[in-house]
Amino acid sequence: MKITFPDKNVREYPDGTTSLEIAKSLSEGLARNVLAAKVNGEVRDLMRPINEDASLELLTWNDAEGKSTFWHSSAHLMAEALEALFPGIKFWVGPPVENGFYYDVDPGNHTLSQEDLPRIEEKMKELAKKNNAYQRKEINKEEAIKYFTEKNDEYKLDLLSNLEDGSITFYTQGDFTDLCRGPHIPSTGSIKAIRLMNIAGAYWKGDEKNKQLTRIYGITFPKQKELDEYLAMLEEAKKRDHRKLGKELEIFTFDEEVGPGLPLWLPNGAVLIEELERLAKRTEQAAGYKRVRTPHLAKSSMYLTSGHLPYYEESMFPAMQIEGEKYYLKPMNCPHHHKIFGSMNASYRDLPIRLAEYGTCYRYEQSGELFGLMRVRSLQMNDAHIYCTEEQFADEFKAVNEMYLKYFRIFNIEKYVMRFSTHSKEKLGKKYVDNEPLWIKTEDMVRRVLIESKIPYIEVADEAAFYGPKIDVQVWSAIGREFTLATNQVDFAVPARFGLTFRNAQNELETPICIHRAPLGTHERFIGFLIEHYAGNFPLWLSPKQVIVLPISDKFNDYARLVSQELNNYDIRAHIDERDEKIGRKIRDAETRKISYMLIVGEKEKETGSVAVRKHGEGDKGNMSKSDFLKMIKSEIEDQLNK
Amino acid sequence: MKITFPDKNVREYPDGTTSLEIAKSLSEGLARNVLAAKVNGEVRDLMRPINEDASLELLTWNDAEGKSTFWHSSAHLMAEALEALFPGIKFWVGPPVENGFYYDVDPGNHTLSQEDLPRIEEKMKELAKKNNAYQRKEINKEEAIKYFTEKNDEYKLDLLSNLEDGSITFYTQGDFTDLCRGPHIPSTGSIKAIRLMNIAGAYWKGDEKNKQLTRIYGITFPKQKELDEYLAMLEEAKKRDHRKLGKELEIFTFDEEVGPGLPLWLPNGAVLIEELERLAKRTEQAAGYKRVRTPHLAKSSMYLTSGHLPYYEESMFPAMQIEGEKYYLKPMNCPHHHKIFGSMNASYRDLPIRLAEYGTCYRYEQSGELFGLMRVRSLQMNDAHIYCTEEQFADEFKAVNEMYLKYFRIFNIEKYVMRFSTHSKEKLGKKYVDNEPLWIKTEDMVRRVLIESKIPYIEVADEAAFYGPKIDVQVWSAIGREFTLATNQVDFAVPARFGLTFRNAQNELETPICIHRAPLGTHERFIGFLIEHYAGNFPLWLSPKQVIVLPISDKFNDYARLVSQELNNYDIRAHIDERDEKIGRKIRDAETRKISYMLIVGEKEKETGSVAVRKHGEGDKGNMSKSDFLKMIKSEIEDQLNK
Repeated sequence: MKITFPDKNVREYPDGTTSLEIAKSLSEGLARNVLAAKVNGEVRDLMRPINEDASLELLTWNDAEGKSTFWHSSAHLMAEALEALFPGIKFWVGPPVENGFYYDVDPGNHTLSQEDLPRIEEKMKELAKKNNAYQRKEINKEEAIKYFTEKNDEYKLDLLSNLEDGSITFYTQGDFTDLCRGPHIPSTGSIKAIRLMNIAGAYWKGDEKNKQLTRIYGITFPKQKELDEYLAMLEEAKKRDHRKLGKELEIFTFDEEVGPGLPLWLPNGAVLIEELERLAKRTEQAAGYKRVRTPHLAKSSMYLTSGHLPYYEESMFPAMQIEGEKYYLKPMNCPHHHKIFGSMNASYRDLPIRLAEYGTCYRYEQSGELFGLMRVRSLQMNDAHIYCTEEQFADEFKAVNEMYLKYFRIFNIEKYVMRFSTHSKEKLGKKYVDNEPLWIKTEDMVRRVLIESKIPYIEVADEAAFYGPKIDVQVWSAIGREFTLATNQVDFAVPARFGLTFRNAQNELETPICIHRAPLGTHERFIGFLIEHYAGNFPLWLSPKQVIVLPISDKFNDYARLVSQELNNYDIRAHIDERDEKIGRKIRDAETRKISYMLIVGEKEKETGSVAVRKHGEGDKGNMSKSDFLKMIKSEIEDQLNK
Repeated sequence: MKITFPDKNVREYPDGTTSLEIAKSLSEGLARNVLAAKVNGEVRDLMRPINEDASLELLTWNDAEGKSTFWHSSAHLMAEALEALFPGIKFWVGPPVENGFYYDVDPGNHTLSQEDLPRIEEKMKELAKKNNAYQRKEINKEEAIKYFTEKNDEYKLDLLSNLEDGSITFYTQGDFTDLCRGPHIPSTGSIKAIRLMNIAGAYWKGDEKNKQLTRIYGITFPKQKELDEYLAMLEEAKKRDHRKLGKELEIFTFDEEVGPGLPLWLPNGAVLIEELERLAKRTEQAAGYKRVRTPHLAKSSMYLTSGHLPYYEESMFPAMQIEGEKYYLKPMNCPHHHKIFGSMNASYRDLPIRLAEYGTCYRYEQSGELFGLMRVRSLQMNDAHIYCTEEQFADEFKAVNEMYLKYFRIFNIEKYVMRFSTHSKEKLGKKYVDNEPLWIKTEDMVRRVLIESKIPYIEVADEAAFYGPKIDVQVWSAIGREFTLATNQVDFAVPARFGLTFRNAQNELETPICIHRAPLGTHERFIGFLIEHYAGNFPLWLSPKQVIVLPISDKFNDYARLVSQELNNYDIRAHIDERDEKIGRKIRDAETRKISYMLIVGEKEKETGSVAVRKHGEGDKGNMSKSDFLKMIKSEIEDQLNK
């Protein structure tokens, strides 16, 4: 049989060879690290034989699906340990999650608490060392029911009742057998580092009328060092929590009477917002964008045209009825921008037309889902829509990517990946707009731009939007936490629904392609990310408090005010600490408040028209004239912005 | 009796002297121009004797109440003419309005049309020349009913049915007698210039179930020259109509599917908005304001605290129900700003705190009331709230006024007046917050600031807001049309309702005073005003198209692009006309599009790195180097902004 690898290399193997054997044939090192295999797009156990020509991707810890297989197997290991320690315990479901896994269990007569976690952890480590294989077994429904009836396990029987005979599998490692679709890693031995994080209540099937089960969360790694780094990262993330720092640094607040998920931005937060918008406007202007402003609501008929009603209605705020018409708060800016493009009577000479707006959208999220700035109900979005011809598409898309890269440099985002979602041939006309040549052509163009720009990306089939391929941009903060910041979409369907056209060179009406892009995402999520990323130590250009002038005694308050005023005149955010405090205390407080520059002024400075400069986290920078300091700080800001 | 004049001068006159006699005693010129008198705050006929000590203001054409008396008398003159021309015609009401007057009439068997207006006008002129006096007569109700019963006038009888005996007066001039409270000017002779503008249908009592009456609109002036100027102004206003120019200059558009009263701002309009916001931010930053950002909605409980519910509910958008709570789009920014101040734990050392935001508010207006940008449903407001102590109030209020004056200079607004509305002693505790000393003190401070700043103002008793005195700012456009742009309010009640406090020097909690101010009003109304004011010829700093580069032939397109790009790099909005047209045509088109500067480039310019400069409406400015042009245009912009 022929096996095709991701790099398009093809090798021949005898029928029935397993993925693990293939891995060994490639490299012993790879075979040691491989966790699961993607065969013809389906993730499977490494030990399952392959019996036909197939595409094969060997999944390791570096692949999201490798990780989730590892964590799924770890959930089984935890179940094995629980059964050994608490006989009679029953199991509901135990899936992998974003970071680790959980299992919902019914402890029966036992009670489980946070104090039990170390003991369970120890048991897991003991069982892992046995290096038991995860053994897959296809089983008929009758036998499966018999097994769990004997075990008196109503939970698994409930699961079984929804499964079809012929598709049922058991997985067994050591003394533990679970009803499970798999896949799993070959054996428990590769689970080297284990930490059970948390224990919580969870209603059976998520329904509060049902019995409450116990949910145990854990995370595992192939190496102890990775677990240590993860725990250190969590510790650091706690210190950098945007809700905690947001309050300490007076960036935003919430108010019960205004409502949950609706942040009020305090003056320091408004500085961040204004600076980000200034950067976006400057960048977009240089890239030939035009700004527009649109209202925050529109009639239902527009959202029927756009397809938001009824497909997106559950994420929208409820309608307001006025003079017999329903008005909705906008969940996205695109329909309003389409209306503006539609009013322009564009000719091919005017294209591409790039319409930009920091538009505020409103989305309904359940109050239980809201989380600081990360999950909110009002979103100020760095939005723009580019209307272009098919010929212009590749250049436009490339320019959008370059803008992302520029922003990554400015914000010191060193790790990022673009998740490129494409269509599925089988679902054309159902899940996807039925125009295969256009999908293939556009996806090829996107792929080529991604490759040429050397941007790290992963390609995921069958996850595109209805109207075109999309790219989710994932970035990692300085402490290694992942954030999804923005989505780019190529849209070759909605412009037609809005009847958008331009007059082409043949003087015919033609429908433009539209690129939706928002590199800085929303202020809410991006500032939430930046607070963690910088731990509140914003770079100078962005810092709400750039300079504080510290008079040594109140004799120098006048001179301090003069210094501060002169800096303000040049758009530097300078403040004064006029409190009757010792200079050492003033410096310590300024450091705590993470103010970029401290200017200490006393007799000598006043006489010579100078300032004694101290930089946050770096200490004394010596004495300089006011104008030299201004020059230095101005050029530092320019350097930070022109990366 | 003692007569006190507005300048506080007091003179003695015999009891029973008329206001006209008093005017004559002051100056013959004044007596010729005086139209009515304000005696102890009540506007009266000049011929009515004064019988007690009184304050007296002699009203001329320059006073709003002088004008409205003149127009009210003109309505009577029109009625006299109508009765002469159309015997049996019946009259409902005939009030003065903002510009002129109207009378609603029932023509009976006659039909009245636009064609009849010149004839009525002629008759009015003829009657005016007779210089008949407007004679006041107190009449008892029985006699009054008898008079109109004999005249068979069911309309005046209807009016009479609602009047109390003892308060009824008739006014007669020439052969015409009307039921009327007055006051009126002394005689018809001063009505020198007359124009009937328009004829329209109007339901009796405004109820469409009633009979339709005929409404005739007219305007009159003491001098023909004033009428000529008024008609010329109307003609010019039509040319400058912001809806017409807004479309031609691609500033804004409306869309049926978005909804009425919700303008979509096109790129040129967004430039105006961004430049206005830049000016506001720069000005406010220099004045020590801090910016904030607040969401566009809030729960009902906040609007109950603020008093918007239920008192302002009819002007608000309907509620959206979420998770059992009602949310409203904000009709004003103040409550959100109060919430931010409330979160700040301010001490007296932090005050004044000035919170600024270009916040978008939503107000429900009936679709029939909507008018271009002047009456809309979404308003982007140049808002700020200043929280200060009583001691700081005068300085803060003065600084706000200075900001207004600065803006008036920048926008070449030469005529403006502040309408200062104060409380009424009798209504304290009912219409007004019950704290007389604070009203008096605050009003005195406001008055003193207005006088010291030499700002023209008029004072109107009993028109303040519930929570403090207010100032409506009225400005006149370049062609003399009046606009109400903004309202300033002093608020010493709502901060307490929100429980806002600061810690004073005695370490006690104290409630701050709040100043609401919005010098640039809303983008919608202000840009609507500016379009008319400048007839679309925006000053350079504000112009959406500052420069257009016109290559003489396509051989110079590259050089044109270079010139344009260099200007763009310095934030100058430069564009290119690359069409294959003769240079003369390109110049003419650029003039039509009101682009401030045209740069013509050909062989000579390309060789020497220069541009041939032409200014909109001014013509050729000669050849200059690119850098000289940049310097010139930059300094022109700075000059315009630093008035």
